[in-house]
Amino acid sequence: MDFPAELKRHIARVERGLDLHVPRADTRPARLHTAMRYCLEAGGKRLRPVLVLAAAELFGRPADAALPAAVAVECVHTYSLIHDDLPCMDNDDLRRGRPTAHKAFDEATALLAGDALLTHAFALLGLGYSGEIARLLVRELADAAGSRRLIGGQMEDLLAERRADATTDELEFIHLNKTAAMIEAALVMGGLVGGAQEASLAELRTAGRHLGLAFQIIDDVLDATADSATLGKTAGKDAKADKTTYVKLHGLEASRQIALEHTERARAALSPFAATNQFLLALIDSMAARTK
Amino acid sequence: MDFPAELKRHIARVERGLDLHVPRADTRPARLHTAMRYCLEAGGKRLRPVLVLAAAELFGRPADAALPAAVAVECVHTYSLIHDDLPCMDNDDLRRGRPTAHKAFDEATALLAGDALLTHAFALLGLGYSGEIARLLVRELADAAGSRRLIGGQMEDLLAERRADATTDELEFIHLNKTAAMIEAALVMGGLVGGAQEASLAELRTAGRHLGLAFQIIDDVLDATADSATLGKTAGKDAKADKTTYVKLHGLEASRQIALEHTERARAALSPFAATNQFLLALIDSMAARTK
Repeated sequence: MDFPAELKRHIARVERGLDLHVPRADTRPARLHTAMRYCLEAGGKRLRPVLVLAAAELFGRPADAALPAAVAVECVHTYSLIHDDLPCMDNDDLRRGRPTAHKAFDEATALLAGDALLTHAFALLGLGYSGEIARLLVRELADAAGSRRLIGGQMEDLLAERRADATTDELEFIHLNKTAAMIEAALVMGGLVGGAQEASLAELRTAGRHLGLAFQIIDDVLDATADSATLGKTAGKDAKADKTTYVKLHGLEASRQIALEHTERARAALSPFAATNQFLLALIDSMAARTK
Repeated sequence: MDFPAELKRHIARVERGLDLHVPRADTRPARLHTAMRYCLEAGGKRLRPVLVLAAAELFGRPADAALPAAVAVECVHTYSLIHDDLPCMDNDDLRRGRPTAHKAFDEATALLAGDALLTHAFALLGLGYSGEIARLLVRELADAAGSRRLIGGQMEDLLAERRADATTDELEFIHLNKTAAMIEAALVMGGLVGGAQEASLAELRTAGRHLGLAFQIIDDVLDATADSATLGKTAGKDAKADKTTYVKLHGLEASRQIALEHTERARAALSPFAATNQFLLALIDSMAARTK
């Protein structure tokens, strides 16, 4: 398997899916749809939708069958970034080198574009899949994005930031829910589209959880060690804000070690799919080795 | 049929459903779940969830079977109010005599509580119904709440307010989508739970559209004619803000007449359900005759 080529193919598929499955910018109201597309087009790694496609392929399903689910997951991820960037949350002016939604448009438009992307994710699942599969996909996505997980993680993150003295327990809750929940859901949703049975879905969930935790710890390590040019965003932000991170609580070396352990456990959870898991294993490795 | 007693029973059922089907306030993160419940408990007419229950009963389904769908609809309505009240939108401090979410908590918590209620609505549908019915409910709710309807209506409302010279066409778009969409969806979702066929669903959609349009025009009329004490909120707000309303575009008498026509058309659309439609007809009449 040629990993870079395969990754490129998956990302191209996601880009095409986003263009195909999101209302055109000139759909009324044009300002709203233009803002939705502006945010979706900002790019990024497309990690979550690629995970959906790759998980469906584990079970021999063509990636195209998983495209509406992949787009739904990216819509939810993008909505969470838009709302997270708002002045009342992180108040960020830039995301991936471009003005954030409320800077490019205005706060109200950004708020509504986020709301619309979240809603659209569920519309895509209701439209793209039949009966029971649609129901299971909706349940998975709503749970992962819900008040106990993604939004719950954002809430605790916000509360922890205000105090600047989060405990290990709080940081675990934040990582598990703000970051890992949607990565778990991406793999499980791909599995559902692929027709995976309960046992396989549980393996995918375990893999997603560990991949998500490794991903977030590596983010913390990079913030503490990389320079802004390599990172493509301001480095050292966490330390400057005295934010509680893995690095602050455990130190740099222990953090790297814990990330490595999570990466290993993510790989191990995928071992039952030995015939078809090469792409996912390579993707996990590339996430562990990333420098930005 | 004793309409007031039946309405009271339906509302009591909705209140019980809200308590039963929304995470407890002490669920982690407690601040988020407390805010969600604070907003849901603010009350109001409970028009939309009662419509869900009553529509299911048209087809002989017990109202309890429609309770998760009714709660889902109220969660979406409540989320839309929370976000609409935010400083970047209407910037309202009070709703139904109580501090709005961002006043009682803070902006970030209000934003996240709204996000969580929207997401929870879909979780309820995925959990409360089986296969194809769940899928159809999700599609209906996501369409009604989506960028072309509820959120689209809010976007155009906001743009119209900024200019203060909305056209008749814009006002129709706003009423049809910001107000009527969720009322339509409430009736259709009740019908779906009741096992209604295509033709009946179309009648319910027509009834919902006209009920929704009548409802919004009567709101405009009341804002122009009632005093604040009767209304339970500041009267004359629209005229003061020079907001484009039905009354401004068509005058008071013509507005009353158009509302009456929509009410008649809503009643007419329910005539195929002559054996079971008494409660819904009485509810439509009570909405047309309301003074607040």
